Amino acid sequence: MNPKLQWLRNKMNSLDLQGMIISNPTNIRYLTNINAEGILLLTRKENIYITDGRYIEHVHSILTINDEIIVYDINDVSRDDYENFFMFCENVGFEENFVTYAKYKEYIRKYKINNFVETENIIEKQRMIKDEEEIHSINKACNITDECFHHMLEYIKPGMTEKQIAKEIEEYYNERAEGIAFEIIVASGENSSKPHAVPTDRKIQKEDIIIIDMGCKVNGYCSDMTRTIFVGKVPEEIKPIYDLVLKNQLQVLEDYKDGASARQISKMAGKYGVRIEDTVQITKFGCIKLTNSEKNYTII
Amino acid sequence: MNPKLQWLRNKMNSLDLQGMIISNPTNIRYLTNINAEGILLLTRKENIYITDGRYIEHVHSILTINDEIIVYDINDVSRDDYENFFMFCENVGFEENFVTYAKYKEYIRKYKINNFVETENIIEKQRMIKDEEEIHSINKACNITDECFHHMLEYIKPGMTEKQIAKEIEEYYNERAEGIAFEIIVASGENSSKPHAVPTDRKIQKEDIIIIDMGCKVNGYCSDMTRTIFVGKVPEEIKPIYDLVLKNQLQVLEDYKDGASARQISKMAGKYGVRIEDTVQITKFGCIKLTNSEKNYTII
Repeated sequence: MNPKLQWLRNKMNSLDLQGMIISNPTNIRYLTNINAEGILLLTRKENIYITDGRYIEHVHSILTINDEIIVYDINDVSRDDYENFFMFCENVGFEENFVTYAKYKEYIRKYKINNFVETENIIEKQRMIKDEEEIHSINKACNITDECFHHMLEYIKPGMTEKQIAKEIEEYYNERAEGIAFEIIVASGENSSKPHAVPTDRKIQKEDIIIIDMGCKVNGYCSDMTRTIFVGKVPEEIKPIYDLVLKNQLQVLEDYKDGASARQISKMAGKYGVRIEDTVQITKFGCIKLTNSEKNYTII
Repeated sequence: MNPKLQWLRNKMNSLDLQGMIISNPTNIRYLTNINAEGILLLTRKENIYITDGRYIEHVHSILTINDEIIVYDINDVSRDDYENFFMFCENVGFEENFVTYAKYKEYIRKYKINNFVETENIIEKQRMIKDEEEIHSINKACNITDECFHHMLEYIKPGMTEKQIAKEIEEYYNERAEGIAFEIIVASGENSSKPHAVPTDRKIQKEDIIIIDMGCKVNGYCSDMTRTIFVGKVPEEIKPIYDLVLKNQLQVLEDYKDGASARQISKMAGKYGVRIEDTVQITKFGCIKLTNSEKNYTII
């Protein structure tokens, strides 16, 4: 069996879980590498993936015999099959944070499950611990983000709109990665105080402050970086705020290590219109910065 | 009260629903024009929208006194407030197809609701009936799609990749609309038989068949159109299939009117690798086509 499915089987054993329905596509991709629409069933004896005709070919191209996953076309699964999958399971776990209430009720009806158990994000928690291959993908996404930011420092000129700048970032990512990881934020001047501003037609002006929040995807893994940059000069009244935010951010990176309380630490940073954000790898011995763009006053 | 909220209040009356929690942002935008993260509560006496500091300014810029919606910052809502909102409601509706099982349990705890009622997509059903303003937005999105398709017929040349073509469509939409309505499909040659193919690096060749599924957004409303086009000439063996699909599609448009069973009709179309799809307005008297690009053999 593939190691991630084996891990989940062991975890289920330790929780006395006899079956599990996995419907979150991100979790399915994590466990199986399958990037499709479908559902993964871990029954007492089998791992079953049910999908439809659109994806059968793709799924078979991904899986090998070592995965030990049986693939069904949804059109070939009868009502009896559904009722049999978990017949000898005393309980079946499901993803209570992904499955809607309506789906939950449908599952009970379809699989004839009496004892549905919340799994409290066991897969999500495991996903936080990245293996080398995953770190490699995140690192690649971070490198592309650093290069893109470097490119943007040359590219951005007064008179351009926020939308134009966001579009250039998007195209850069489309060409070099699997596109954006989230909607890019470019917030300038008075917009910079709105943490989730959508890029507008506002034109960049002299002495503007510009916040850029950007990230891309590589093999489904994301980078995420924010920088605050200045047009022409750094306004005197901003300097103490910028210095404080940067100092806090550096302190946070210093303090973060495996086991430290994330909530406690992040309370201190992000408090102002100025924003600085990095993607980091947290190890037992501290942080490894994966995004490395300039953080001192950056003037364009 | 704004007419859509008033409609929902009337609907709730007719269903003997005394309160309702609306969490699906698309439904909230439909009812209130608010495009943000938050939750809408219809209590016995008030319409309440709870959001956070990021959106307060935006929300106040959207709402007028006539909307009769009270806006709360989530930080100002106490545990007691949550318990009081639905205190005198004998039942409270919720969106069982949007709310996860975990959220459902959280709502029960937080609002102290004993009698939660499934609302069976009442808002979604109402959203299917479009008013003039909504039709205007959809029509605009359709016009832009027709123009874009026209542009693409000039643009596409053998040697270009599917990705390049998809990107051009995306940029066209970014400049003239609110961007794409969904991931654009460009499927050529052997890829054309996969209904949901992601654009690849495959280069367009002579005598290729190309399926393009495209749509954009205007004011949050979408167009959706598919055309099958040919490079150089229409292969003889494809002609009978194309003719059949087109004939079926035209028949479907002929038969569709308000009240006709959508499932029955759509069974007939889409059956082959050839695909033709339009956005239409369904009235009592039949269909009004909103996308109008050429459907006879189109050769580039």
